[in-house]
Parts: sequence; C-alpha cells; structure tokens
Amino acid sequence: MKTDTLRARLLDAQLDLARRRERAVILLLTGHAVTHKGRLVNELNHWLENRHTEVHALGPSSEERERPYWWRFWRRVPDRGRIGIFIHGWYGDALFARAERRLSPGAFRDRLAEIRAFEAELAAEGVVLLKLWMDIDRPAQRRHLQALQADPARAWQLSATDWQRHLQHAAIGALGREMRDATAAEHAPWRRLAFRDPATQLQRVGALLRETLVAPPARPGGVPEGVTEGVPGEALPAPSIRRAEPRVAAPLSKASYAERLAEAQGRLAINAREMARRRIPVVLAFEGLDAAGKGGSIHRVTASLDARQYRVHRIAAPSDEELALPWAWRFWRRLPADGRIAIFDRSWYGRVLVERVEGLAPEAAWRRAYAEIREFERQLLAHGAVLGKLFLAISQEQQLRRFEARAATPHKRHKLTDEDWRNREHWEDYERAIDEMFARTQAPGAEWALIACDDKRRARLAVLEEVNRRLEMRLASPH
Amino acid sequence: MKTDTLRARLLDAQLDLARRRERAVILLLTGHAVTHKGRLVNELNHWLENRHTEVHALGPSSEERERPYWWRFWRRVPDRGRIGIFIHGWYGDALFARAERRLSPGAFRDRLAEIRAFEAELAAEGVVLLKLWMDIDRPAQRRHLQALQADPARAWQLSATDWQRHLQHAAIGALGREMRDATAAEHAPWRRLAFRDPATQLQRVGALLRETLVAPPARPGGVPEGVTEGVPGEALPAPSIRRAEPRVAAPLSKASYAERLAEAQGRLAINAREMARRRIPVVLAFEGLDAAGKGGSIHRVTASLDARQYRVHRIAAPSDEELALPWAWRFWRRLPADGRIAIFDRSWYGRVLVERVEGLAPEAAWRRAYAEIREFERQLLAHGAVLGKLFLAISQEQQLRRFEARAATPHKRHKLTDEDWRNREHWEDYERAIDEMFARTQAPGAEWALIACDDKRRARLAVLEEVNRRLEMRLASPH
Repeated sequence: MKTDTLRARLLDAQLDLARRRERAVILLLTGHAVTHKGRLVNELNHWLENRHTEVHALGPSSEERERPYWWRFWRRVPDRGRIGIFIHGWYGDALFARAERRLSPGAFRDRLAEIRAFEAELAAEGVVLLKLWMDIDRPAQRRHLQALQADPARAWQLSATDWQRHLQHAAIGALGREMRDATAAEHAPWRRLAFRDPATQLQRVGALLRETLVAPPARPGGVPEGVTEGVPGEALPAPSIRRAEPRVAAPLSKASYAERLAEAQGRLAINAREMARRRIPVVLAFEGLDAAGKGGSIHRVTASLDARQYRVHRIAAPSDEELALPWAWRFWRRLPADGRIAIFDRSWYGRVLVERVEGLAPEAAWRRAYAEIREFERQLLAHGAVLGKLFLAISQEQQLRRFEARAATPHKRHKLTDEDWRNREHWEDYERAIDEMFARTQAPGAEWALIACDDKRRARLAVLEEVNRRLEMRLASPH
Repeated sequence: MKTDTLRARLLDAQLDLARRRERAVILLLTGHAVTHKGRLVNELNHWLENRHTEVHALGPSSEERERPYWWRFWRRVPDRGRIGIFIHGWYGDALFARAERRLSPGAFRDRLAEIRAFEAELAAEGVVLLKLWMDIDRPAQRRHLQALQADPARAWQLSATDWQRHLQHAAIGALGREMRDATAAEHAPWRRLAFRDPATQLQRVGALLRETLVAPPARPGGVPEGVTEGVPGEALPAPSIRRAEPRVAAPLSKASYAERLAEAQGRLAINAREMARRRIPVVLAFEGLDAAGKGGSIHRVTASLDARQYRVHRIAAPSDEELALPWAWRFWRRLPADGRIAIFDRSWYGRVLVERVEGLAPEAAWRRAYAEIREFERQLLAHGAVLGKLFLAISQEQQLRRFEARAATPHKRHKLTDEDWRNREHWEDYERAIDEMFARTQAPGAEWALIACDDKRRARLAVLEEVNRRLEMRLASPH
C-alpha cells in the first residue's frame, strides 16, 4: 500500500474506533535498544488523531510504588474508543530486570504468568492488544550506536544504558523469545519487526495497527484461551451457605457484649496502628445478604480506626467513566496506599453475585471473573497487603423480621427498598451463586469468613475477631 | 441538645445531604497543637455515615509536588452528597510555614488571597464550608503536653513539632487571627473553639456541623462576596475579534510555506526538549470558531513534540463524575506534571463561550468564571508553567466556504455537524462573548493570541510562532 493511502486508511480506522467507543486498543512496543522506538512512536502519532491517542513511557511515581505493582498499568488502560501506546509497558521491567539479574528466573516466569492474566482480562473486556518486538542484530545495533555517538545533533539521545543493552544483546534476545513464547495468545499476538530503516518500520507498524483496528471484534464476553474458571490450584476447603449449620448459642447479655466489644476494638486499634507503622496496606471486602448488618459491622470496625487511616468505599452502580473501562478498573482505582485501610462495602464480588443473578453480566463474563478475581487478590497479597473477605449471612426468617421492623420504623424506612424484596425472591439463586463464589475464590491468604448474623451481637464480635485475626497473622509473619 | 439527640439529628442531616446530592460539605479544622483534633475527627467520624465521608490529613505526594500548588486540594474536593473533613487543609501550610519564617509576610498574604479565591469558587459551586480554629491557651497547652508525655500509652502521639508549636504559641495565635480576618466570609465562616474537654468539643463541633448541613443553601450560582468579574488589576490591551482588521497578505507559496513550517517546527522541537530538561510544564489552550482549523494547527504543533512529552485533551461534555464536582475540577485534573505539555483542544473558556451563548450555565455562573479563570491561570504561572492561549478566528464567508467544502468531501463530512450550523446562527453572540473574554482574561503571562485563519498556511505558521515565542520568553527569563 502506498504510504499516503495507508495513512488515510489508518486514520479512518481510528476515527471509526473513536466513534463506536466499543473497544480500546493498546499498541505495545518493546525489544532491543536503538531500534528507534521513540522516533517510530512520534511518527505514528502524527498519522493518528492525537485527541484519541495517549502515549505512556514513564517510570513509576511515589503513588504508584505505594500500591500493588499492576496499579500503575491499570490506571493507564485507555478508555473505549482510544488508543494507548506503551513503550516497553509491562514488559520492560521484567525483561531488563531479568537481564540485569535483579529478577530470578522463577520471579521472571511468575511475572510472565501475571502478564498473561492481565492481557487476557483486558482482551475479554474489549481491549485489543498488539505487541511488537523490535529486533535488530548485534552488528547493526553496534553500527547505529556508533553513528549516533558520532553525530553531535543526536548524541544526547544515547545513554549508558544503551551500551549496556548492546553488551547484553544475546541475553535480551533469548529472554525476548522466552517472553514472547509465554505471552503470545490469539487475543494478544506478538509481531517481530527486524529493524531496517525508519520509513519501512513506520510503514509496517502502521499497517499492523490498521489491521488490528479493522479486524472483527472477538466474540464479546468470550473467555480468552488460558483463562479458566476452575477452582484455585490448591483446593482449600471453602465455607458453604447452604450447608452451614444454624449455630445456636445462648444470647449474649448487653454487658457481656459491651465488654467483649471494647476488648476487640481495643485490639483492633493497636493492630491498625501497627499496620500504619509498618506501612502494610489492608483491604477488607464486606459482602452479605440484605439486612445482615453490613453497615453496622463496618461501623464497629471503623470505630477502632484512626479516621485518617481508612476509607470506606461503597460500591454501587458504576459511573460512566468506569463503564468505559474494564470492569475491574473501578476496584483497582480504589486500592489503598501502603499503611492505609480500604473497606469495601460490597466489592468486586458483585460481578459473580448480583450481576450474575440479575443477569447484568453475560454468563461468560461472570464465569471468567472467578479467575480475574483470584488474580486481583493474588496481586494484593503479592504486594504485601492483608486481605479480609467477610460474608455476612442471615436466615430467611430473620431477614423477613428485619425488613418488617424497618418498614415499621420511620427513620429506618429509607434503608428498605423494592430491590431488597426483589432480591429475596431470588434467595436460592443467590445461595447457589454464593457457594460457587466461596468454592472458586477460596485461596491461601484470601480465605472467606462466613459470618452468621441472625444474632447481631455475636455477628459483630465475629467480624472484629476475623479482622483482628487476619491483621495479627500478618503481624506475626516474619516478612 | 442531648448528645444522643444531636447525634441522631446530625446523621439524619448527613443522609439527607447524601440523598439529595446537591451540595458537598467541607469541615476544616486547624489551629493550635494539642487541641485533640485527631481524636475529635475520629469521634465525629463515628457519628457520621462513613460511606459518605472522607478524611484528608496527608502531606503531598510526588505527583502533587509536580503540579501547581492547589492541585493537591482540588483533587480532594468531595463530590456532591459527601462530607470532606480536612485536618489543617490549605491553612496548615501557610500557618506553619509563616510561623517558621519559611514564608515571607508578603507571600503569606498572597496565600491568604488564594485561599479566599479557592473558597469562593467552591462555595459558588455548591460546596459548603465550615472552618474551625481550635484554640487553647498557653498554660493549658503546656499542661496537656506534659500529661501526654507522662502517659506511656499516649506518649507516642507527641512529636517534637508539638513542643515547637507550643513555644510558638503567641505567634501562631497572632497568625491565626490574621488568617481568620483575611479569609472569613459569609460562605466560608470561621468558628473559634476554645478547648475545654473532649466531650464538650465533640458536642460543639457536632452541633456546628449539623447547623451547616441543615442551613438553607445559598442562592444557587450567586457570586460570593469578594468575587468580581472585573478586568484584571493591570488593564492590559486585549485583542478584539470585532475590531480586528482583515489582514490582507499575499498568499504564501507551497514551497515557501514548507520551508518556514520546517524552520518553526525545528525550533519548537528544540524548545520543547529544553522545557523537559528544565522540568517546566506547558499548558496550551486552543479556542476558536468552527472550521478555523484548530485540529490542523494542533497537529502542526504536536508534529514537533516527542509523543512521550505531551497529551492532547479534547474537552467535550463533562462526565458524570465531573458533574458531581465544581466545574473547574475537570481542568485541574488534567494539568501536566513538570516538564510535560498539556494541549487543550477547547478549554475552560467554554464556560464563557458556548456555556454562555447556549445558556448552559446561568449568567451568574459564567460571570464569576472570569475571576475563577484568572485565578486558575495565575496558579499555573505561579507554579512556573508556561501558558499559551490561542484563539483561531475565521471570517463568516470563509467559514461558509469550508462548511460547504466539508459537506462535499466524503471523508470530511463527519466533521460537519448540525451544531456547527447552529453556532453560525449565533455569530454575533459569540463575537460579543469572545471580546468580553479577551478583555476580562488578558493578564501578564496569560495574554491571548488572536490568530486570523482565513489563510490556513499563514495561520499555522502564526500558531507555531506564538507557541515558540512563549516558550522562548520563558527560557530566556532568569527564573
């Protein structure tokens, strides 16, 4: 194709993407040094409508270093309708850290697995990926380096790193092959481009990007290869709301409750302070049946916390900015910085509960969410966060009593909505969804606590006990 | 009022705020050390529904330090329906920096003026402010400090700073008076609270917050006292679209245009690189009449830039997240970090152009926007940014020719919308709004460039010339 024709068609395809706002596109370039990636991105950018394009090539900020590793990439995922161009992106770190032996072979392979999961999740949510490995052979790389160095007008573009990467040419080549083999997928293909000259390179990249833009979209909501909904590797025993025995315990006197509550809150205050001191982030996810007492339980937790340390995130319908991005984005954006506590009043589990039962997400979407959630939580744990997942259960009879009490109490009436009654009609569907959720997302460090809430006092103590237990386990661990 | 009654009423008032989502509330606490602000905020927070509350007490992050000073506060303004509690907020910095003589008396007064402008803007946009000065006399402060130090369970709460602030008690008291006098306003009142005991303090703050919550809202869109739309202090000559003489210049040959374009773009490339090296941020606002060639001009600018350095922000309708915040928030959130370039394709001037002419904002709202915009731009300049404001004008006849050409060209037809034809009908209203905008927002360092665009080639060269001129002025300045 002639350059002018290609350029016009590429722009057309981009404008079509922007008009439809159905998919986002990520173009990622990585590979050897001195392959003129910077120039290429600049030229390509002139071909594109830059109001719908963003280029990312920066190192992490302090806000990024204080959050799980993938936060820095999640916050840069382009909205539907936009093209995000990443220089090195999530590959540079793995590649160069491994080449410089700052990453062990095992950690390198783990990172590649994370990349696979990240890309599969993006792809399933309508982000189209094109990944380019910029190749150059060692003698040519050397010639380009020398030519750059000899040219006073361009020598500033060179850094010591470029020479270092030239010396590591063979290692980077081998790591690149391993990386591509491990992360190539139908939804995230790799293309290798041998560097010849800038004009040819631009032409080829432009053509590949255009092909990507005009390719028919993958089946919507399809489960990309490599993503399974299966239970996690280690099959841990999980709780079950259907098999739970009704715990009959003697009611707790008000005095005895007050005493135990004060003790548990005192412990929590000390534990939380220690988390802040050791800069350990905490993420607590509260799920539960309507009227089980989520709000009240969260209040008993926050009562022990310094108001400057925590934030409660109430998860309701997504905003329109959130709807333009993969579903998990709205949870990533709310992750706490190190030493802080994020409490989710309803959470990412809405994907496999209300969205499943009410048919708000297609089956394929909520099915793959199990794997996505496991990966999300693994990321939190890998960053050193403490994760607490609490499910507050209530019997059908007790729920009815509480609904009726709410309806009869003027200042509580606003808490009871038509939705509550509607959800009650789906009781068994919810129970099925809850048990499947338990089984598929039970994982080491991310175990569920199923808390029987028919007795409010015992329930609140159990919530505090669970939170304390998780914090104390973490504080007792050497790491 | 009994504590329980007060607590219930406060919560009611908060829930009402959250339900209506018409206003946000900011409670700001500052004042002397050892006035138990931390404890107070915690207790107050237990009284409130913490799903609709956020507490801010942190120092600036690296992302914040790399942007204009007020960015850190703008990003923390609560959404409508929410309460934001700030410990010291935008006062702590001014107060303690002045007490420690890191801020000159003049700089302190300037900061107070900025605070007045910030609070007036918030108030006008539906953010209700309550500011508390926590007072304590010197002997009582000393007693509290000694008691804290003697108590092993609480001694960790003390820092060297607390003792230092005790020694500066008189200075902080005097500065506090000056600060309150300078920033008290009907829409942002100060309350002084002498510390007696924690229970009384909580009761009083709870009552004040409730009063604030239930007070009838100020006139919507009213211009708060102290905000004027008047022209800036130094009356600079401003351009005028109605008085502009049609510049008749000989058409530029293609060859001559290409040569001058290449020269201007080469200069821009060098200038932009120097901005990155010196970590100077650049903000370019492009406004203009339909079909004047905004897009094409921006492309000629970005063609000289490294794609990693800039981002083009196309300003269209606000998102729902943006609608829940003061109007200027969506421009603050897009400010570039140091050394980077943000190009606005349409900008904050929409407030006094399309929103005025189409009646999308009430008159009081766009009238006060002149002062708000002047302050916004002053902030950018104070941070050391370069600001370029370019208005691309076109004659009515030339616009018609371009509309007709677009309608006749298949791949340009999408650029022509009904809105374009509608805007044409308001030609004179727009001209009036544009000239008033020029006059009221012309300021040193923030001068408008009115660019005649009937001749596309000359227009593009003029745009590049203006951008180069502004960057070179900044690079030539010693600061």
